[in-house]
Amino acid sequence: MSGSLSVVGLGPGSPQQLTPEALDAVASAEDFFGYFPYIDRLNLRPDQRRHASDNREELDRARAALAMAAGGRKVCIVSGGDPGVFAMAAAVCEAIDAGPVEWREIELSVVPGVTAMLAVAAKAGAPLGHDFCAISLSNNLKPWSIIERRLIAAAEAGFVMAFYNPISKARPHQLGEAFDILRRHLPGSVPVIFGRAAGRPDEAIRIVNLAEAEGGMADMATCVIVGTQETQLIERAGERPLVYSPRSWPGPKGTAAASAEGKEAK
Amino acid sequence: MSGSLSVVGLGPGSPQQLTPEALDAVASAEDFFGYFPYIDRLNLRPDQRRHASDNREELDRARAALAMAAGGRKVCIVSGGDPGVFAMAAAVCEAIDAGPVEWREIELSVVPGVTAMLAVAAKAGAPLGHDFCAISLSNNLKPWSIIERRLIAAAEAGFVMAFYNPISKARPHQLGEAFDILRRHLPGSVPVIFGRAAGRPDEAIRIVNLAEAEGGMADMATCVIVGTQETQLIERAGERPLVYSPRSWPGPKGTAAASAEGKEAK
Repeated sequence: MSGSLSVVGLGPGSPQQLTPEALDAVASAEDFFGYFPYIDRLNLRPDQRRHASDNREELDRARAALAMAAGGRKVCIVSGGDPGVFAMAAAVCEAIDAGPVEWREIELSVVPGVTAMLAVAAKAGAPLGHDFCAISLSNNLKPWSIIERRLIAAAEAGFVMAFYNPISKARPHQLGEAFDILRRHLPGSVPVIFGRAAGRPDEAIRIVNLAEAEGGMADMATCVIVGTQETQLIERAGERPLVYSPRSWPGPKGTAAASAEGKEAK
Repeated sequence: MSGSLSVVGLGPGSPQQLTPEALDAVASAEDFFGYFPYIDRLNLRPDQRRHASDNREELDRARAALAMAAGGRKVCIVSGGDPGVFAMAAAVCEAIDAGPVEWREIELSVVPGVTAMLAVAAKAGAPLGHDFCAISLSNNLKPWSIIERRLIAAAEAGFVMAFYNPISKARPHQLGEAFDILRRHLPGSVPVIFGRAAGRPDEAIRIVNLAEAEGGMADMATCVIVGTQETQLIERAGERPLVYSPRSWPGPKGTAAASAEGKEAK
């Protein structure tokens, strides 16, 4: 007898940014796994069971949820943001890959959500307006040398970058080091956005330039977006400036590339 | 007298993946701009006015919407997916930057949405499970040499890639060329996902490997995800295989990096 497992993205935190699909997946499940602050966002019924855990045991949590689903329960794992972006969907797949063959028969669904970089970008303007990448700065699961290599590759190739897991008590230095690396490859004028709790009551958006960016400006709930040389600031009276990365190369006031706009339908 | 402009992400297409925030933004606006298939998704009231256009005139559309908002109207521009990812938010910022100073006083809000790569990734498993990038393959606004450079940088640094605007009638060759470039830098076994209309009734998800990937497997409504050497396939009886990119380096069955998991709370 095989049950089901849904891996659900709750979005950045505001109920206004939670999809109906995610709400339905929560409503139809019996058992809930996830990091406790995400479980706490749900208004569970008395018949729905919580199996909250801290954030350190993703693979254990995935295995426990799969074992329960294999036993016939309707199980839900919740992630903040999108479950496929540095969150539980990959851990569940890893557990299935290494686990008993019957776990492959569990009805599995992944429910996407608004991931943090999109919510932060929306508050700032359009900093992800051209090619961009998302990098986890946590070196728990990959060596720092790989992260360093990706930072340099992204800077040199002109990608906007969004940093997830920028800093934590156990990793206080990585974000500052990342800024130091980027300062060797990008101008100091590049805009950097620190977006904390976007869309929630305690939202805080701060814009600085790369020259003055420091690790201490973020905490573990912050998504950091680093622009490129092309990223622009629009000053506004009495408002936070808008930050955007122009769609065209080499910039909005360009040139050959910009004048080619409008030749095509998507 | 200054009105307002909201730039709203409608998600991948299913009403189930549309956020309450986006619905509210639509409900409170008077005038609507956007590519006509997106406008067609809305159930507008008789008092709400449509100014649909084709998809080629993004900057003109942004200017028209801003001019109307500056005149005091409540204006809404709709995008599919997320408005900040290869969509209207950057065009609006470009228009503000180059436009009359009063456009900076317009109350501007960007409402994020579930972008195509997240919806496609959810259907496939967790292909974006580690560091990834998003690249528009359209060379209308940037030279192909820049795209080529980014493809190579991403492949060499080990980013999963999501391609937006992979192909169109006016650009039939770019996607095939991109695959050719990647075949010179990645093994032929790397999984490639073609995700069309994810979450909609006409959804089609196809998984091939890089060696056999062809431009003709996509159309302009397709988001293409290219894995890395680490991306894994899990075969399932009677089901599409799961595709995932392990969180750890160099892989799920690793090693030093994998055993370091669990040392930290996010």
